[in-house]
Amino acid sequence: MKLTIVKVGGAIVEDEKTLQNLLRDFSSLPGPKVLVHGGGRSATQMAARLGIESHLIGGRRVTDRQTLDVVTMVYGGLVNKRIVAGLQACGTNAVGLTGADMDVIRSHRRPVVKTADGDVDYGFVGDVDRADGDRLHLLISAGITPVMAPLTHDGHGQILNTNADTIASATATALSSHYEVTLVYCFEKPGVLRNADDDTSVIPLINAQSYEQLKADGTVSGGMLPKLDNAFAALRAGVTRVVITQATALAEGGGTVVTIG
Amino acid sequence: MKLTIVKVGGAIVEDEKTLQNLLRDFSSLPGPKVLVHGGGRSATQMAARLGIESHLIGGRRVTDRQTLDVVTMVYGGLVNKRIVAGLQACGTNAVGLTGADMDVIRSHRRPVVKTADGDVDYGFVGDVDRADGDRLHLLISAGITPVMAPLTHDGHGQILNTNADTIASATATALSSHYEVTLVYCFEKPGVLRNADDDTSVIPLINAQSYEQLKADGTVSGGMLPKLDNAFAALRAGVTRVVITQATALAEGGGTVVTIG
Repeated sequence: MKLTIVKVGGAIVEDEKTLQNLLRDFSSLPGPKVLVHGGGRSATQMAARLGIESHLIGGRRVTDRQTLDVVTMVYGGLVNKRIVAGLQACGTNAVGLTGADMDVIRSHRRPVVKTADGDVDYGFVGDVDRADGDRLHLLISAGITPVMAPLTHDGHGQILNTNADTIASATATALSSHYEVTLVYCFEKPGVLRNADDDTSVIPLINAQSYEQLKADGTVSGGMLPKLDNAFAALRAGVTRVVITQATALAEGGGTVVTIG
Repeated sequence: MKLTIVKVGGAIVEDEKTLQNLLRDFSSLPGPKVLVHGGGRSATQMAARLGIESHLIGGRRVTDRQTLDVVTMVYGGLVNKRIVAGLQACGTNAVGLTGADMDVIRSHRRPVVKTADGDVDYGFVGDVDRADGDRLHLLISAGITPVMAPLTHDGHGQILNTNADTIASATATALSSHYEVTLVYCFEKPGVLRNADDDTSVIPLINAQSYEQLKADGTVSGGMLPKLDNAFAALRAGVTRVVITQATALAEGGGTVVTIG
């Protein structure tokens, strides 16, 4: 059976208008599905309102104890429950989950990273050890749609802030033993572009062979490289296909389809 | 099969020390179980930090839109996920739920109440319409322990702030078609006291007949009356027994047992 996992970033779910469109489009997708969401902007705003400074190293949030409380509230409470209640209104029977809920995603705290500029401690950030496909399958087979917040736990009571893309790929991989999984990454562009300045230049299909070519000739570079590397990692781990698209194009399809062969 | 539902107020779950004791004691309870929690003090503190004034009418919080965001964050995120991660560390496979999750508790916004002092609008407060015992049973029969936050939804996308005692009694009633349910209300006293100043004067058993006597002779009065009225309502709706006790006495038993006959 086919299953679709959609990952959306914070910008989409934090605006009331784009959120409602997303929830309607997501609900219209056929078959079993899972939604994974971010929420970084809301967390940054809430931290600022509480007088907690957001500290980023290389684009990644440093999660001290106060910041962990903020992301636990914002990701696990505010953003997640708004999505769940909104999906219920669309007729999709959703359940909000962090990795701690039903122990679905276990992680460990990221070790201190040694760099030329000294030690970097990202704080309460989790690197995923395993996602539990069987427990998610239990819910999904009962007609429930998991909505996953970017939080995990270490099994010893510690909640950990965790990258939403990683949550999505770990979940997709874990569910690939039960389903033929399509993993959809929504971002701000309509797909992988041949020409970064031309939104109509979407590359419809990338496989392992053409990816090497696109890297070699410089068509794909910068921020797209880690996205595509993650996509191929998920494909090699059992996911059937990865789609890179825009949230606004979710219902009509399109974007860049990434497959192994 | 027997099932225990434990309701604890905010004070217990908001202090790290008493929370850890509670989670250990709750985990040690035999058989399937459900935890229902409050969190009002944390919500009041968080609202104050955000410059949102907490407004109470007759002890009940008025939930304007800003306050709804605060309780959604605090109850659904901060408090609920701490409990869930803490229970996982105790070996209890918990899942955090609001009423919106899996559509387990549906409510409607409380209508404006007309009083002698004018109209009172409690704002985004939900009065429970129904709890879904079948969906909770699906989780429980798979070895999962629901942890319920005092939030519900109206089915049209609106989250509603909902009294935790009501969540507990509605859940207990809904599960009584699947289980022989004991509903435990933890509060600050070791049980219903014969003498309010003497914590050793716990009345071990109250039934419908003795309750009438205790009311008539003035032994039970004030704040205990609505608690016992709620207890008898749950018993009449199918709950096997209600226990009124202290969270610290959860593991050893004791307190006041309330039954119909």
